[in-house]
Amino acid sequence: MSELSAAKIEGKKSKAFGTNGNPEAQKWVYLFSEVESAEKTAGDWDGVRSLLGGKGANLADMTRLGVPVPPGFTVSTQACNAYLANNEEFPSTMWEQVLDAVNAIEESTGKVFGDPDKPLLVSCRSGAKFSMPGMMDTVLNIGLNDAVAEGMIKLTHDARFVYDSYRRLVQMFGSVVLGIPDEPFEALIGVQRKKAGVTEDADLSAEDWRYLTQRFKVIVHTYAGIDFPSDPYEQLKLATEAVFKSWNGRRAIAYRNQAGIAHNLGTAVNIQTMVFGNLGDDSATGVAMSRNASTGEKELEGDFLINAQGEDVVAGIRVTQRIQELQTWNPAVYNEFESIANKLEKHYHNMQDMEFTIEQGKLWLLQTRDGKRTAQAEVRIAVDMVDEGLIDIRTAVGRVQPAQIDFFMHPQLDKQALKKTEIYAEGLNVSPGAAVGMAAFDADTAERWAKELGRKVIMVRPETKPDDVHGMLAAEGIVTSRGGRTSHAALVARQFGKPAVVGIMELEIDLDSRQMTIDGDTFVKEGDWLSLDGNLGRVYLGQLPTVMPDINNLYLSKLLSWADDIRKLGVWANADYPDDAIRAREYGAEGIGLCRTEHMFFETERMPIVRKMIMAKTTTERQEAVDKLLPLQRNDFAGLFRAMDGQPVIIRLIDPPLHEFLPARDDLIQELADLKVQMQHFHTLSEIDEALGKIRIREHYLERVEALHEMNPMLGTRGVRLGVLFPEITKMQVRAVFEAACRVALDGVDVHPEVMIPLVSHVNELKVQQRTLEAVAKEVMAEEGIEVKYKFGTMIEIPRAALTADEIAEVAEFFSFGTNDLTQTTFGVSRDDAEAGFLMEYLQRGILPENPFESIDANGVGKLMGIGVELGRGQRHDLEVGICGEHGGDPKSIQICHKLGLNYVSCSPFRVPIARLAAAHAALADEA
Amino acid sequence: MSELSAAKIEGKKSKAFGTNGNPEAQKWVYLFSEVESAEKTAGDWDGVRSLLGGKGANLADMTRLGVPVPPGFTVSTQACNAYLANNEEFPSTMWEQVLDAVNAIEESTGKVFGDPDKPLLVSCRSGAKFSMPGMMDTVLNIGLNDAVAEGMIKLTHDARFVYDSYRRLVQMFGSVVLGIPDEPFEALIGVQRKKAGVTEDADLSAEDWRYLTQRFKVIVHTYAGIDFPSDPYEQLKLATEAVFKSWNGRRAIAYRNQAGIAHNLGTAVNIQTMVFGNLGDDSATGVAMSRNASTGEKELEGDFLINAQGEDVVAGIRVTQRIQELQTWNPAVYNEFESIANKLEKHYHNMQDMEFTIEQGKLWLLQTRDGKRTAQAEVRIAVDMVDEGLIDIRTAVGRVQPAQIDFFMHPQLDKQALKKTEIYAEGLNVSPGAAVGMAAFDADTAERWAKELGRKVIMVRPETKPDDVHGMLAAEGIVTSRGGRTSHAALVARQFGKPAVVGIMELEIDLDSRQMTIDGDTFVKEGDWLSLDGNLGRVYLGQLPTVMPDINNLYLSKLLSWADDIRKLGVWANADYPDDAIRAREYGAEGIGLCRTEHMFFETERMPIVRKMIMAKTTTERQEAVDKLLPLQRNDFAGLFRAMDGQPVIIRLIDPPLHEFLPARDDLIQELADLKVQMQHFHTLSEIDEALGKIRIREHYLERVEALHEMNPMLGTRGVRLGVLFPEITKMQVRAVFEAACRVALDGVDVHPEVMIPLVSHVNELKVQQRTLEAVAKEVMAEEGIEVKYKFGTMIEIPRAALTADEIAEVAEFFSFGTNDLTQTTFGVSRDDAEAGFLMEYLQRGILPENPFESIDANGVGKLMGIGVELGRGQRHDLEVGICGEHGGDPKSIQICHKLGLNYVSCSPFRVPIARLAAAHAALADEA
Repeated sequence: MSELSAAKIEGKKSKAFGTNGNPEAQKWVYLFSEVESAEKTAGDWDGVRSLLGGKGANLADMTRLGVPVPPGFTVSTQACNAYLANNEEFPSTMWEQVLDAVNAIEESTGKVFGDPDKPLLVSCRSGAKFSMPGMMDTVLNIGLNDAVAEGMIKLTHDARFVYDSYRRLVQMFGSVVLGIPDEPFEALIGVQRKKAGVTEDADLSAEDWRYLTQRFKVIVHTYAGIDFPSDPYEQLKLATEAVFKSWNGRRAIAYRNQAGIAHNLGTAVNIQTMVFGNLGDDSATGVAMSRNASTGEKELEGDFLINAQGEDVVAGIRVTQRIQELQTWNPAVYNEFESIANKLEKHYHNMQDMEFTIEQGKLWLLQTRDGKRTAQAEVRIAVDMVDEGLIDIRTAVGRVQPAQIDFFMHPQLDKQALKKTEIYAEGLNVSPGAAVGMAAFDADTAERWAKELGRKVIMVRPETKPDDVHGMLAAEGIVTSRGGRTSHAALVARQFGKPAVVGIMELEIDLDSRQMTIDGDTFVKEGDWLSLDGNLGRVYLGQLPTVMPDINNLYLSKLLSWADDIRKLGVWANADYPDDAIRAREYGAEGIGLCRTEHMFFETERMPIVRKMIMAKTTTERQEAVDKLLPLQRNDFAGLFRAMDGQPVIIRLIDPPLHEFLPARDDLIQELADLKVQMQHFHTLSEIDEALGKIRIREHYLERVEALHEMNPMLGTRGVRLGVLFPEITKMQVRAVFEAACRVALDGVDVHPEVMIPLVSHVNELKVQQRTLEAVAKEVMAEEGIEVKYKFGTMIEIPRAALTADEIAEVAEFFSFGTNDLTQTTFGVSRDDAEAGFLMEYLQRGILPENPFESIDANGVGKLMGIGVELGRGQRHDLEVGICGEHGGDPKSIQICHKLGLNYVSCSPFRVPIARLAAAHAALADEA
Repeated sequence: MSELSAAKIEGKKSKAFGTNGNPEAQKWVYLFSEVESAEKTAGDWDGVRSLLGGKGANLADMTRLGVPVPPGFTVSTQACNAYLANNEEFPSTMWEQVLDAVNAIEESTGKVFGDPDKPLLVSCRSGAKFSMPGMMDTVLNIGLNDAVAEGMIKLTHDARFVYDSYRRLVQMFGSVVLGIPDEPFEALIGVQRKKAGVTEDADLSAEDWRYLTQRFKVIVHTYAGIDFPSDPYEQLKLATEAVFKSWNGRRAIAYRNQAGIAHNLGTAVNIQTMVFGNLGDDSATGVAMSRNASTGEKELEGDFLINAQGEDVVAGIRVTQRIQELQTWNPAVYNEFESIANKLEKHYHNMQDMEFTIEQGKLWLLQTRDGKRTAQAEVRIAVDMVDEGLIDIRTAVGRVQPAQIDFFMHPQLDKQALKKTEIYAEGLNVSPGAAVGMAAFDADTAERWAKELGRKVIMVRPETKPDDVHGMLAAEGIVTSRGGRTSHAALVARQFGKPAVVGIMELEIDLDSRQMTIDGDTFVKEGDWLSLDGNLGRVYLGQLPTVMPDINNLYLSKLLSWADDIRKLGVWANADYPDDAIRAREYGAEGIGLCRTEHMFFETERMPIVRKMIMAKTTTERQEAVDKLLPLQRNDFAGLFRAMDGQPVIIRLIDPPLHEFLPARDDLIQELADLKVQMQHFHTLSEIDEALGKIRIREHYLERVEALHEMNPMLGTRGVRLGVLFPEITKMQVRAVFEAACRVALDGVDVHPEVMIPLVSHVNELKVQQRTLEAVAKEVMAEEGIEVKYKFGTMIEIPRAALTADEIAEVAEFFSFGTNDLTQTTFGVSRDDAEAGFLMEYLQRGILPENPFESIDANGVGKLMGIGVELGRGQRHDLEVGICGEHGGDPKSIQICHKLGLNYVSCSPFRVPIARLAAAHAALADEA
């Protein structure tokens, strides 16, 4: 050793002190080969991950499995915590345990740390229990100094490689350990390239790198005020401390806060022998997955580069080779790698994502972890692994996330087309799905193009504000250059199911010239076509074709049928038309939890009759209109009953306020004003007559609209209140239900109608409706000459209904939680107003942890539901309880429903498969 | 006896059977003198009333006290129940017990039932535990038949009296026992008057009455299909059965349902010797109160008529004499009556309302009951009786109903003026207070006169509908000719505190000629003055003066101070201005529970600044406006703090949505349209310029109003949401509070500010506000150089706040239930819409038992409050909990607040005295 290792001496001293003082000193450092010892300390596998971090635990794991891993060791998370708690000093004996571990590596490799003759270089990496951005990452080539470099040149005869490695150490150490920005280093390399008259780093010579290494040391001195430490142990010590300190870095804390990771876990430090894939043409480096990450097919998938370093593979400067080509280049290594992949899959029961290096013909695994994959691949791999005996059914079902099923329910950009298309820009993938449309640069344009011209539009903005919501709603998808995962654009897009890519930092949008650019060169003009992949956060130029994933693929069907066996919750669907019901059944629905009868009212040919009903001045007049609606509704219901032969169908009586069926007040006022202005230009009597007729109709409507006007229609005359005030409507709807039920029953259909009353807040409202219903049902069944069994029940969507559920269950045979309205009233929030207003600001500022209209608010709304279930079942033990709000298709909410002991969730047909899986997850959570 | 008494024989038979079979037969019949025996059976006084009914118990009571009561007996309620349960047959031995009792009367009076020589006549009256309309009332003169009549004529030498009595028996028996309508009887009398050529019944002769008696018997035969029973025992038996059966009459059941009286109580039957006040000039009959029912003064108050029957006193045909004149007419009887009155007051501990008859110089008491009295008299009597040692303080406080205190808080028609004024019409007294105004016959006229002409208006309609509400609101009072206590008019009037008299059946309102009449003769034209007494349901012609009752009268003060000693709840007041606070303190408030800071914003000189604040385009601009408001609010608060020296003052930060401070959207649109039309007629540039300026301002407002427009403002951006979005406003208000508090504290005022955040639904909202508040408070106290103690708290007015009260109490030091909003959200009802709409219909139809905005809905909102209190105190045991919604002044709601263990109720200053008494009542209920 040419230089004195103060750090090592210090360690030895403290070791002497430490071991004298406390022979049973705590173990802070674990060789990769000491996994049993770690298990003894930490208990189970999860404990080992807590102690050694994810990366360290996997390295130790691989070592035990006999996978070739470059020797190394892990400084535990406990050491990190002790260091941070102890005023940033290493705990007693830690450092000498590190030195012992270095010794052990030296022994197993035959190399010596800091010895120019047989130099040992190591990497130093952080590794917490959960993968975490924002922490110190990696310092490579620790152990190099001038003397060691000279020694290595003698050994490798490759001065260029050695000085390139050396300058990388100085640069990484400077930026990662000492916090020096990368720019001065990169600027110097640029100057050197110019000097040398080359354009690529690869063309710089050994001398260039040697010179740069010296210059980099000057930068370190200038910026950090210290000399770059030539003592390898000092390098190691400072790098270790830097990792420890980075646990409490600002970004790391912020990330943990957001991701809900505890702050007391600490990070481990992994110190590992360096191996080099750039030591000649018998060296290589690469990454590979044990299965195809796109399709899930069982085949190695990955790339490698001969005579290269890991960074080169990632940087994508050189063209990589497919992993299969390794078989030709070095069959032995390929076979070894393949068998390692299988071994790791068997060990981890999961597809692996592996980094490897081949150093002069010898294969080394540097890292393994569970591989990221598409939703499609996730499903197939889970099913295949059950068939291969790698995992059991419960694991397979538990592993696929319900949200991943969403992929199968939405169109996606066509893969074949994507292969031929370059990515234009990448941003944050904040709202999934594919969208294709013409770029529109403001909300008004987006809305006008979509509504008036029928164009498909992608709305593009630097960022969005509440004023932009109308444009976002009209658009197919949203792109922004600013904002993060909780930006207004992200929240609104997710809320309304619009695919979105936000925060594309390099995107420059020029609102004046109505164009945007990413490189200052090619410009996208307003009106040009764009295609978005919201799953991956990518934007493409042009109008790419989309395809619908195959929901009926065998793997998915198998997985969902397993989920069906596990789940306790029934999964029903909300459907207003027979077609919806048929689709819902195909997707696995076991009943209709909500048929919104008023949707049938909105159909074009029915609106005139509905309006007559509302405009009626007398009960007789109203009855006439109602009578005309009867056969139409009867046919609707009959179709639904036939589609759901053998399954229950819940029909909800009319719910929305009547003014919703009339023209909007503002429109009427505008039309009237326009008509009156036009009148002045008419010349013929017939023109004037016609206009007067139009004016009269509108004035008539306006009068009624104003009479029906309410300050807060959400809390006004709707739901059961309508039914109580206008019993004709209730009678007609009930008659339609029972006439349809009786007639299809006579045709041999197994019919199970359930009539549901909305917006009940007092049991007496329900009693009034029950009397009407029973009379009509009896009458119709006598007329039709057949009895059908039915249920009478109510929505629980008003806090008072939940609070008095015992009284209500005296009358109601079933409950269905309407959690949309229940959330509105429990929070005192009008969804229409809030989601375009303060609610989004609350979410952005973290005042609300999540949007209660997306996932049931467990502490408030969930508590109220619990009260409702308990009181209701206390009164009527076989009470059927379900949910038919949008939450019925949300996995988190489904878990709450499961915990509350609901009988079923009902959701849109498209979410039925998701709900089936989510319900199984909820049941699995009970078993854990 | 000239006629055979089958009924008596039957009784004797059954007696023989009954006593042989069961010597210990149940006692069904109690002589008035057997009160001890009744007490033995029934236990306490309440039990005796249950057994004998109220009337029977009082008659027995008086008998025991030695008050001269005509001998008689009571058939118990148990007998009634047994009769009804036993297929309408008398229970075993009951009838012979009746016969024994008749025997006993015969013995004590020396008269014999059915004996023409010494005839005994009896009355038969129903008497349930609680006074109840709709049951069979009274049959007098039972025991008369042709033979007895002849005998009585011999004894009295007054054939006219005897046949008048006889025909009354037949008529009453016919109508009351046999259900024959009164009309045929009255028609016959009319015919007879014509024949006799007289106009008054008094002028009909003995022969006329004899003839009518015979004709009445024919009517009985014709209508009932049976002969009028000449057997006195048969008369008695049928009358007794009729009383029993009337317990289950339709009206009686309906009444019990409405009044919440149990259906299994049954009614007793009182059979009592007849005495006659019309047996000559030494006979008389009258009614009197033991104290003055108007003022409460201790003096007999009543009337009597010499040689008359009870009906004559009530009918008001003859002019009665004041009870004091009895002293001259028959001093001995007067003195006896006075001492009986005192005796009865001492016994019942209450003012008595007594019916008496003087038969040939002998005084008989026929009935006594607690006397009805005015609120004023109630208070004085309660206080006097404590002073007289008749009752204790708790009884006095418990006896005065909180609603009676309301009388002292509203103007009343002047008594002196009333003495000189005839009552024009009487109807139902559905909403208390006095109102004076010009008759307006439709809502639009009422509103126009009130708003545009500044007139005081009484709205007069046949009945009201939701469309009339705007007129009712503009009117001083309401009069209708149709509708009952739960009619739309009654409900709306009570709701908005408008005095009202409804259901004046004889009032004919002619909407075409715009006039009304009660007798078809004198007409009241639209625009004529009317005066209403809503307490008594009376209408007077002309503009009567009103007076304010003296709230500070000694009796009331004394009573309320006793209430203060008893109550556990604090009574605070809602006050926005120092004047209100001073009044509240005078009325006994112990703190300010709610100061609505935005009310200060609404003042004319401040609105321009407030609007600038809202219209601000930048934070700086907004800050400028906010800065101008600061000193104004500071002065407001300083005044309040000074007024409440030593007591807590809760200041609520701004609550209503901002658009409320801007002109209404509709108005702006209209003004803009008008301005644009006007423009076309302008000629000078300066006119046009001015108009353009006005247009610009309105367009600017309109833009902002539309931006602030919300579908459901009640659930929109208001309350804490405003404070979170516009922290400048919060900061200004908090600064104003603390600057004021510090400065008055420096002046020596003992200041206790509490800052309250409205509309919180999630604890995080409160945390955001708390941070702002604490920073500003600290800053201000440092600037002012003084520390003041304060509390930070929140309203609980959203269901979620109550459901998560534990989380909220981590931050909040006090809760104040805002039960107006809590009722709106818990019921899912917009009060503005509902009270003009379906809610009134719900109340009319009994779908809701009472208006939840008047009294807290115990089962729903009350339950939620209970959850809030329990969770809140569980988290913070010394949490201060109050209520500041309108319910805080409602006695029923105050009882709920007491049960929930709230610290105080806060209400409008005018309701503070009511709340003090109601709180005492709630505490007394605990003791019971």
